[in-house]
Amino acid sequence: ALGASGATHGGSSPLPRTKIIMNLPLQPVKGARDFYPEDKLKQDYMFSVIRNTVKQYGYEEYDAPILESLDLYLAKSGEEIVKEQTYTFIDRGGRKVAIRPEMTPTVSRMVAARRQQLNYPLRWFSIPNLWRYERPQRGRLREHWQVNVDIFGVDSLQAELELIMVSNAIFSAFKATSSMFLIKLNHRSLMDLIFHDYLELDTEQAQKMAKLIDRMNKMVHSKFLDQVDSILTPLQKETGISEKIIGLLTIKNINDLPEAIIKSLPVVQLKQLMDSCRHHGIDNVAFDISLMRGFDYYSGLVFEVFDTHEDNNRSMMGGGRYDGLVSLFGVEPIATVGFGLGDATLANFLDIHGLMPTLSTQTSVYVAIINEEVTSQAIAAANKLRDQGINVAIDFSAKKLGDQLKTAQKKQINLVMIVGQNEVSTNQYTLKNLATSNESKLSLEQIAKLASSQSI
Amino acid sequence: ALGASGATHGGSSPLPRTKIIMNLPLQPVKGARDFYPEDKLKQDYMFSVIRNTVKQYGYEEYDAPILESLDLYLAKSGEEIVKEQTYTFIDRGGRKVAIRPEMTPTVSRMVAARRQQLNYPLRWFSIPNLWRYERPQRGRLREHWQVNVDIFGVDSLQAELELIMVSNAIFSAFKATSSMFLIKLNHRSLMDLIFHDYLELDTEQAQKMAKLIDRMNKMVHSKFLDQVDSILTPLQKETGISEKIIGLLTIKNINDLPEAIIKSLPVVQLKQLMDSCRHHGIDNVAFDISLMRGFDYYSGLVFEVFDTHEDNNRSMMGGGRYDGLVSLFGVEPIATVGFGLGDATLANFLDIHGLMPTLSTQTSVYVAIINEEVTSQAIAAANKLRDQGINVAIDFSAKKLGDQLKTAQKKQINLVMIVGQNEVSTNQYTLKNLATSNESKLSLEQIAKLASSQSI
Repeated sequence: ALGASGATHGGSSPLPRTKIIMNLPLQPVKGARDFYPEDKLKQDYMFSVIRNTVKQYGYEEYDAPILESLDLYLAKSGEEIVKEQTYTFIDRGGRKVAIRPEMTPTVSRMVAARRQQLNYPLRWFSIPNLWRYERPQRGRLREHWQVNVDIFGVDSLQAELELIMVSNAIFSAFKATSSMFLIKLNHRSLMDLIFHDYLELDTEQAQKMAKLIDRMNKMVHSKFLDQVDSILTPLQKETGISEKIIGLLTIKNINDLPEAIIKSLPVVQLKQLMDSCRHHGIDNVAFDISLMRGFDYYSGLVFEVFDTHEDNNRSMMGGGRYDGLVSLFGVEPIATVGFGLGDATLANFLDIHGLMPTLSTQTSVYVAIINEEVTSQAIAAANKLRDQGINVAIDFSAKKLGDQLKTAQKKQINLVMIVGQNEVSTNQYTLKNLATSNESKLSLEQIAKLASSQSI
Repeated sequence: ALGASGATHGGSSPLPRTKIIMNLPLQPVKGARDFYPEDKLKQDYMFSVIRNTVKQYGYEEYDAPILESLDLYLAKSGEEIVKEQTYTFIDRGGRKVAIRPEMTPTVSRMVAARRQQLNYPLRWFSIPNLWRYERPQRGRLREHWQVNVDIFGVDSLQAELELIMVSNAIFSAFKATSSMFLIKLNHRSLMDLIFHDYLELDTEQAQKMAKLIDRMNKMVHSKFLDQVDSILTPLQKETGISEKIIGLLTIKNINDLPEAIIKSLPVVQLKQLMDSCRHHGIDNVAFDISLMRGFDYYSGLVFEVFDTHEDNNRSMMGGGRYDGLVSLFGVEPIATVGFGLGDATLANFLDIHGLMPTLSTQTSVYVAIINEEVTSQAIAAANKLRDQGINVAIDFSAKKLGDQLKTAQKKQINLVMIVGQNEVSTNQYTLKNLATSNESKLSLEQIAKLASSQSI
């Protein structure tokens, strides 16, 4: 068997196999993140809480390639995303492809492909990484992960209610209280009614107005007012349409909507949905007439979850009904409601509310070898612990014990099993707890027991 | 609260928001896979077995962006991969980027960036998706996932031994027996010695010979012999170099290597390593002089795990020592040994040896509502089960009970909780077990208990 340091290495190959390129980048590409183990632990924590929660509602995980045909996004996404923000290129086979900027077109494609075989209500979720070429900023990165949760085949409001319950359950699972976030609701058909019947805008004006209201909170108010005017004809301005729009946008309570609208089906649905949410204990729901959602494919109720923290007052999760999307693939439409939740915004939320737990390495025992000649026995002892389900790392550095203990400390592994000649001959190993400075002689069985109890 | 079907939906928006593009693809891009829930379950099973196993050896998970600067791959990968097989493009900011074809350059970059702060021995793993533009075939796809396991900072053979132990542990965790796979070993320095000192090839000839031997098993033998000759000079051929090469390649036992080589350090190391493997109970190791490994960055011992099944006799996992790669980023070199294992080849292995278990949905209880008026109570009951950690899906279809039971069966959810007026008023719910056809009236607490015991 090998000694602790084994034979010295046979030397690197003398062949100049490749040319060396200087100034290789040490950083990831702009707007994307490396996940060192401490970062990955956080991501794993977030995703495992989410996975457990959505599975409690019967959702099943799916996945798909990160590259898709570009056509998929030309069909029904917001134009800005496709024209300005996708990572698009032509592959070596001449295909126009894109790195997915969102998951909804992909999941619609997958459902359309098996339209007949799937069993409805169909509940699916995924946590894909997505890419958008945009200016990186807090909570908005070029690569991010987005939890996507969708229910297919339910045309009643039960679908919206369930997805709001799932959203609420996710935040509750992170121990967020209802004052920390607000669920905002609106309805695409209500906006259509307002734009067409109440304000009498034409189709193009309505579209422009929707896009403008979507950006309202990102611009100064005077500029917003100017842009409202710029969409209207002189006659419309004279008859006070601008004022009507501004007036509507100040409405906070759904019951304050104009007479002509308040009895319409979309308003009835909004009120029913909010009542149902409250009935099931979700009180932090509110109507928000300015909620437009960026994507063009939404066709009914839309909702967003907002962080109420004054330093992070932003949307974290958004979704709604998009019954028409699956039918773009040439099959019968399927009633669909879905939402997306980004990892970067969620991490910001957890951080700012103090909800991100301290996470440490999953390695329970560090083996320090104080005599190279027993390396093989130390490995065998480590393997016995591993057979008991204990995670064990071995220090092969052949450094002094003090240095090996320091390494364990830096790795935040509290239990160090010291292996020397004496330990091997007696089968009693010195176990040092770096957190308490306790030291004791224990059998491997005792160490396994202790380590399991500590890692729970 | 809402009835089972709620209010009917408010109708789709009358606005023609976007133009409809016909003939959207239903399939994923060529060479890549959709993961429907049943496929994702398999992938999750494979990855969770692997994660648990490598964590037992103290490895910690990291991740990085799927896009990298193209320069990263120009430096030290095999040329074929970069020139012919990468998905490369110029992003909107003018950067030359590539979708990662392998993870080793990325992990080297990340280690180099924190060369001083990291604690050695450093044990890292990742399960990235990688893309290569090549002809899709069994076990070789354009997108695949590859488990990458690396140890940094150990220059002794303990590193190689540990990674072979980890490889073996992974296959054992899948309940593979040692006769199902073979771990093949070779040494880059041994090959250098053979090419330069023993065969007296020049640098270019040695490189060509290495690439040729790497492809040997993929070509007919007569063509291989022709190509060997084409690399040699007339004088070399006359002095019998071809025969020497062919002779060497037939050697199966390391002790049959020529006198001049058998006492060299690489051979000593190979023998030591095989002895150590056997000492720790790994008998299925063998020297293989034809094992070259495609990547140019390997500098010492190399190894591969082969499937021994006659219908799937192929490499599943490969790795070795690549001490020089981190130093390409302008920092001091770090001793490194790593391996990669692809998901598609692993799935083929598990399938062909009958080791892939039958996996079913993680949803335990299906709620059938037989009276729309109690929908709200059914949701509340489902939420109580969820609070006990039970995964529950609700059928909102308002179909006949028989149809709802059929849906549950198709979804392979065995426990169906039937909710009607009677159940709600008595708080005793009818639970039907579709596997046994048993039916009983139970409280929610009893159902929770039963469902937990079944889902273990």
